[in-house]
Amino acid sequence: MTKESSALTDERILQSWSRNSDPWVAAVRGKEIASRALATDAAIVDAVRSCAPRTGVDLGCGEGWLVRALPEVSMVGVDAIAGLVEAARAGGGGEFRVMSYEEIAAGRLQLAVDVAVCNFSLIGEAATAGLLRAAPSYLRPGGTLIVQTVHPLVSCGDAPYVDGWREGSWAGFSSDFNDAPPWYFRTLASWITLFVDSGLRITSLREPVHPDTGKPVSLILMGQLPG
Amino acid sequence: MTKESSALTDERILQSWSRNSDPWVAAVRGKEIASRALATDAAIVDAVRSCAPRTGVDLGCGEGWLVRALPEVSMVGVDAIAGLVEAARAGGGGEFRVMSYEEIAAGRLQLAVDVAVCNFSLIGEAATAGLLRAAPSYLRPGGTLIVQTVHPLVSCGDAPYVDGWREGSWAGFSSDFNDAPPWYFRTLASWITLFVDSGLRITSLREPVHPDTGKPVSLILMGQLPG
Repeated sequence: MTKESSALTDERILQSWSRNSDPWVAAVRGKEIASRALATDAAIVDAVRSCAPRTGVDLGCGEGWLVRALPEVSMVGVDAIAGLVEAARAGGGGEFRVMSYEEIAAGRLQLAVDVAVCNFSLIGEAATAGLLRAAPSYLRPGGTLIVQTVHPLVSCGDAPYVDGWREGSWAGFSSDFNDAPPWYFRTLASWITLFVDSGLRITSLREPVHPDTGKPVSLILMGQLPG
Repeated sequence: MTKESSALTDERILQSWSRNSDPWVAAVRGKEIASRALATDAAIVDAVRSCAPRTGVDLGCGEGWLVRALPEVSMVGVDAIAGLVEAARAGGGGEFRVMSYEEIAAGRLQLAVDVAVCNFSLIGEAATAGLLRAAPSYLRPGGTLIVQTVHPLVSCGDAPYVDGWREGSWAGFSSDFNDAPPWYFRTLASWITLFVDSGLRITSLREPVHPDTGKPVSLILMGQLPG
């Protein structure tokens, strides 16, 4: 592995995902990810429905399952990985676009939807911050951004509880995956700061629990753009 | 122990504290509580100062150390336990009043301060909710409520991660303490809901870390009354 390809950067995340789009589509559609089937899929659908949106955008939509899980919402799905958007279009259920977070941060999405949702799709550093700051370019005034992510207190592991890049891992996934994307760890405090600094008012925080352990498996943050 | 005295209730908390006010004054003034000396005392002082307040109220002030630690702020300290307020008055540094959270919830405090602070003083159930809902009766519009409490993810222990009463413990304290007060565990999600439902906009969340473990030892939530 060259130095360039092992760097912990936003760019590297995209490189890795472009290499793993086929096994990812198979894993999601085969319901191979236990925590999603047991808790977090239903939790994000519930969170979106709690806003009773008519329109929405799924940022980092992947192969599009969440768009299809919300047939009552007029949804746009966006992803930077062309292979995933291709799979999403084949699955249908909404409109799908290829666009990077950097392009969205630059204001290119030009929507005014009721709800924007990022389901485990914010794993970068500057890319994530830019996407949140651009909320007024895709949310209507009064609209809500919903982010589901790994729970900082649970996912921190033995490392210090401070923001920073972490090496990725496909542990628990099939051998078809390789070159795991790095991810940028954020403390709970940093997630709240990111919302507040982006002009989003925290309206709700949810902590879906694992049905077996009774402990949180993820964090859902909801923030509203002032109306 | 009679059934009444072992009940897990807001009333029982007050009974317990009234029996332990003397050793508590000694423990705080003797700096016997390690986590306070190492992290959380400085963290709450920093949080208050980040608001640059001219006036403040310390709700559940105990023996008054935090009032004295903020000499630049015109502070009122309030506590339900007469013995603690007596010790606070002897220490000076501000005005101290005996008043229960139930009385404050009923609007009896009648202040309009820049900052209200609850430093590990919200351990009840309905008493806590009532105190937060009454924020407009002691904070000015645009004023900030600051709560420091045990970190839900860290303090949960092996019990299920759900709101509920927990038995108290004086483990780690001197043998002068007895009849530990029960406390009402709240998840992080429930704390956020409590702020939002009380009309307080989350402006900041802080997680003071223990200098040795690098892990959070407490949670500080800051919420602003709309101006």
